[in-house]
Amino acid sequence: MGIRKDDNINLYSRYPAGPGNKITDVAGVKVGNVTIQSEDHNVNTGVTAVIPAGGNLYRDKLLAGASVINGYGKSVGLIQINELGTLEAPILITNTLSVGTVLNASVKYMLGQNPEIGVSTMTVNCVVCECNDSRLNDIRGMHVTEQDALDALEKAGTDFEEGAVGAGTGMVMMGCKGGVGSASRLIDIAGRTYTIGALAVTNYGTEHSLIMGSDHVGARLSGQRPMQDKGSCIMILATDIPLSCRQLTRMANRSAHALARTGSYSGNYSGDIAIAFSTANRVGHFSEDPFVRVDFLNERYISNVFEATVEALEEALLSSAWHAETTEGVRGNIIQSLRDKLSVK
Amino acid sequence: MGIRKDDNINLYSRYPAGPGNKITDVAGVKVGNVTIQSEDHNVNTGVTAVIPAGGNLYRDKLLAGASVINGYGKSVGLIQINELGTLEAPILITNTLSVGTVLNASVKYMLGQNPEIGVSTMTVNCVVCECNDSRLNDIRGMHVTEQDALDALEKAGTDFEEGAVGAGTGMVMMGCKGGVGSASRLIDIAGRTYTIGALAVTNYGTEHSLIMGSDHVGARLSGQRPMQDKGSCIMILATDIPLSCRQLTRMANRSAHALARTGSYSGNYSGDIAIAFSTANRVGHFSEDPFVRVDFLNERYISNVFEATVEALEEALLSSAWHAETTEGVRGNIIQSLRDKLSVK
Amino acid sequence: MGIRKDDNINLYSRYPAGPGNKITDVAGVKVGNVTIQSEDHNVNTGVTAVIPAGGNLYRDKLLAGASVINGYGKSVGLIQINELGTLEAPILITNTLSVGTVLNASVKYMLGQNPEIGVSTMTVNCVVCECNDSRLNDIRGMHVTEQDALDALEKAGTDFEEGAVGAGTGMVMMGCKGGVGSASRLIDIAGRTYTIGALAVTNYGTEHSLIMGSDHVGARLSGQRPMQDKGSCIMILATDIPLSCRQLTRMANRSAHALARTGSYSGNYSGDIAIAFSTANRVGHFSEDPFVRVDFLNERYISNVFEATVEALEEALLSSAWHAETTEGVRGNIIQSLRDKLSVK
Amino acid sequence: MGIRKDDNINLYSRYPAGPGNKITDVAGVKVGNVTIQSEDHNVNTGVTAVIPAGGNLYRDKLLAGASVINGYGKSVGLIQINELGTLEAPILITNTLSVGTVLNASVKYMLGQNPEIGVSTMTVNCVVCECNDSRLNDIRGMHVTEQDALDALEKAGTDFEEGAVGAGTGMVMMGCKGGVGSASRLIDIAGRTYTIGALAVTNYGTEHSLIMGSDHVGARLSGQRPMQDKGSCIMILATDIPLSCRQLTRMANRSAHALARTGSYSGNYSGDIAIAFSTANRVGHFSEDPFVRVDFLNERYISNVFEATVEALEEALLSSAWHAETTEGVRGNIIQSLRDKLSVK
Repeated sequence: MGIRKDDNINLYSRYPAGPGNKITDVAGVKVGNVTIQSEDHNVNTGVTAVIPAGGNLYRDKLLAGASVINGYGKSVGLIQINELGTLEAPILITNTLSVGTVLNASVKYMLGQNPEIGVSTMTVNCVVCECNDSRLNDIRGMHVTEQDALDALEKAGTDFEEGAVGAGTGMVMMGCKGGVGSASRLIDIAGRTYTIGALAVTNYGTEHSLIMGSDHVGARLSGQRPMQDKGSCIMILATDIPLSCRQLTRMANRSAHALARTGSYSGNYSGDIAIAFSTANRVGHFSEDPFVRVDFLNERYISNVFEATVEALEEALLSSAWHAETTEGVRGNIIQSLRDKLSVK
Repeated sequence: MGIRKDDNINLYSRYPAGPGNKITDVAGVKVGNVTIQSEDHNVNTGVTAVIPAGGNLYRDKLLAGASVINGYGKSVGLIQINELGTLEAPILITNTLSVGTVLNASVKYMLGQNPEIGVSTMTVNCVVCECNDSRLNDIRGMHVTEQDALDALEKAGTDFEEGAVGAGTGMVMMGCKGGVGSASRLIDIAGRTYTIGALAVTNYGTEHSLIMGSDHVGARLSGQRPMQDKGSCIMILATDIPLSCRQLTRMANRSAHALARTGSYSGNYSGDIAIAFSTANRVGHFSEDPFVRVDFLNERYISNVFEATVEALEEALLSSAWHAETTEGVRGNIIQSLRDKLSVK
Repeated sequence: MGIRKDDNINLYSRYPAGPGNKITDVAGVKVGNVTIQSEDHNVNTGVTAVIPAGGNLYRDKLLAGASVINGYGKSVGLIQINELGTLEAPILITNTLSVGTVLNASVKYMLGQNPEIGVSTMTVNCVVCECNDSRLNDIRGMHVTEQDALDALEKAGTDFEEGAVGAGTGMVMMGCKGGVGSASRLIDIAGRTYTIGALAVTNYGTEHSLIMGSDHVGARLSGQRPMQDKGSCIMILATDIPLSCRQLTRMANRSAHALARTGSYSGNYSGDIAIAFSTANRVGHFSEDPFVRVDFLNERYISNVFEATVEALEEALLSSAWHAETTEGVRGNIIQSLRDKLSVK
Repeated sequence: MGIRKDDNINLYSRYPAGPGNKITDVAGVKVGNVTIQSEDHNVNTGVTAVIPAGGNLYRDKLLAGASVINGYGKSVGLIQINELGTLEAPILITNTLSVGTVLNASVKYMLGQNPEIGVSTMTVNCVVCECNDSRLNDIRGMHVTEQDALDALEKAGTDFEEGAVGAGTGMVMMGCKGGVGSASRLIDIAGRTYTIGALAVTNYGTEHSLIMGSDHVGARLSGQRPMQDKGSCIMILATDIPLSCRQLTRMANRSAHALARTGSYSGNYSGDIAIAFSTANRVGHFSEDPFVRVDFLNERYISNVFEATVEALEEALLSSAWHAETTEGVRGNIIQSLRDKLSVK
């Protein structure tokens, strides 16, 4: 049982957090944010890049699984993850109408690293996820450039900011300012410590239903008439536990449980989408070996993995709001931060 | 926002409960329990029957959807619900190894009502769901008879018991005695009041993770070393709102959120399965009209339906434990009731 | 390219058949048929058992995948195959209304082999598939007994009959007498020969659309007004190639292609369902090792596996009709054999 | 039974073709091709736009369903079609690496038509599908511009070319030059004639397995060592029959059967993806009515719809090759036309 980051979020926790309490506690994972804002407050958007592992991802793919908790979303790249169980490119997150631009950037990034693509071998499955930041951002202006996406990839490192940054710059979570949140958990399996990391871009839910740890905060905060649950939530799960793509899909499915613990019921307009990957096995694109040998977790030990996943992701979701500052946006809209609402310094 | 049934379960609630606060608040829904116990405590099992609507279900089918939250389960009948979007038989719930017997009973029940089946028309898709009650029940003995299932159908009415009865007789929820639980919510749409009802047979989770309303009760209860999350949860959702089968599937998907609010992370061994149906449209089996006309809810109003569904089901899940008594079972196993654990009279 | 079994079925084939040209060419696979017929022709039904491998299946599970091509069907056991990717019991096939009885038999068979089930370990996922044989069988009579199913398991061997036997006794395929059909293909991977086997119970399609190899036979046969495509098709695929459950699901998905080559468009009432398993890896139920090591096929070599699968299954489907005799059934219905229709001796 | 377009393709057909024998026989459907080729033959690519109905698609959405036959593909927009059952934007098809650019164009096209998007209402789900034309096209050059996509939308009409045009310019089907193909079928339901239209962009299969009507052509054509089945196939199905999104998904699922009739077994690298829509019902984006009333086909009549769909799509697939000319492409690659291979003038 534990308390985290701040006495105001009293999260039940059976597993300890990793040293950074972020997704980058999983060795090899890097995250980069590019924040795009204009002085007139009309532009509040950005890109968040998750590089899931070192080396050449296309040549040495990761096993992965995806889960569509609620499909009101425009994410790109999930079909192939589901069919082949592999991830071969970084995961980029941005606003809904900038998916095409960020996809172009990701394609060029992958072409640059892999001269064989489209010549002597197949194409590449780039992954771009999105939330709709139009409450604070002039989303119609399509202000994200390909260079912004490339910069997010370039800047990616093991340390990164949470809150109203990157793809989270203009997002709204549970009526509060949302953004990028992350957390991690450590779990022992057969005498070795493994890490589960979560990163979320939060743009979902209604204020009145916000739950923080053991507290229905939203019921107190919400003086107004309840709003519709719109927006979306992108959830990235990383681990160094050897999991098969089927197991990773099961892990991704548990993102519904983490969302629910924060008060979400996955409203109609919420594209709640999760991708889980493991850094433990690599699948060689150019390998001509007839067989691939993988280790995966004995299923009897997977319940704890699910539990730690829910813990990490619940904290990541709340952390996004905890770290976000009150933000003024397009059309004079102002979204207060959670801490301002709670009058926490 | 409200408190329900008892001051000890302080559930956040935006929607009022129906008059009976049970699934049978949805007009036409009937529930029947047959409880099977032996004096030597070796047998603790039963059957719960949900008759989803009046009239001849086979001739006038309901729209329905199903969701497999975690597929470690042996439920029967979901494939056809998913393909055709209809429910044409009652839903029966029992222990895992008695599915065949209860299926036989349901087939005979349907044959009795419909002399055309297997002669001048197709067969019938009977639905049987299950949980594993072997912690308290001699499940290998296969003690449920076809007559037990027929009796549950025969006894079905608008009033029924919750707790350690029917299919819930031998179930264990979150380390406490589980069973049958039910609740309902009322929701206004366009000036008319509709009802959402939930019934659950609960056999899932670990004591240490139990959440009741806003309280991590399990963290206090659990002195022992945490157990694996095994068992299952069958969740039946009923409504009189005109929903399409796609919308009912979305509704069923929200059962993950309700489970999570009680502390579940859908452990490996938990067959968490939901079926949702609407009584508002009937689809005629023998109709030769070229087209079927249905009304379904404008999607913009569905988020509230999801929220009310999560509320009703969360309460149904907790209600199953709240109403169950401490039970002695096979091999001397005793599972304490939630109220005994909490020392509530 | 080859011709098979008979000059009248000129099948295009790139892969050679195995020595028996049946699913039992895959080492370890056994098939048993129990045929149930009454002298008054009212009863024409049965059970077909597929034992997928030697040893104790529950203790040492196989990897498996399933595919629902058209879900108008009542098969049991697919949910867990999809979630866990394993097969832990034989596959039994019977008529639609006898699923409960055969399921009971399978449960008892598994309990007999595994005293731990339901006491010191979980329950068991039995798999029962079905087609509706009511055109020739008094299906309402539920004439299959548990002993019939146990006998089919008992009789299972590497040699077995095709045609109007076992579960295929009362089935109708493409307006002709259907039944049990099987075939196999050999495929070289990295210098070693592997086997793909297919077994089908055929009860689908309309006479007018029957295609045999390169011949639209049905267009000539069908003098009558075209009938609806009703009935179902159960398709079992076996291989000794090391395939993951994801790959086996992909393999099962190709059963649609084989069906189509015989003229099917998977009519509304056709429960077209496929299960694929590999005998190459075993997953230990009681293993406490933290990790499971499996080899699976390098995806770059899988297209040939798909092609050989389609070839084997297409032949299995046609073989069921080729081997079936004209059968008189309930209510005076007579279904002519394909060979009688073609006036082939 | 009929013969179509040319005596050399002898297709079995139970349903008559519509007046144009193209997808545009479905009233309201428009198709536009933009073909992009360079004189040095390095560029062979393009865009095909399918505008599914008149009026403002975003304000008055169509019901739709999608099916992933094999998910080695990068199509965009399917997640939301599956969740909501609606299509709210044109379908654009291009090469794999140009999806981002075409997506941007489609977003701008939709923003132009709908000033409310991203301001007073949600965003928009644009649909872009793709095949890999790198055997004939310098796909790394990303030669498609946003203007090309807008031009394809602008040019869209009821008459359009088939063969090596638009998105099909650089595609290869079954070892022959592929491209854009289309066909239609008329079907009577309750005394009224309805239309089913199909359009395919074909880039799949291996020469040795090509089947045309009742003829295994490929087995004769293919002197070379068999090639891998790579590439993809995008299949668009349109109808004016009132079908629900569930029924449209079932319709889309039958695209596997049509593929198979041409010899495909959906090889590993083939992103075989189908989208089906009906023009019969419109769902109002801004409607505040509590309920939507739709008519949908009585399921008992749907088998014929499936059969006519398979017929139309089979012909569309073959028609793409029939109309394509021998094409020289990048790196000196030349892909012969089917007619050249068959020496048909």
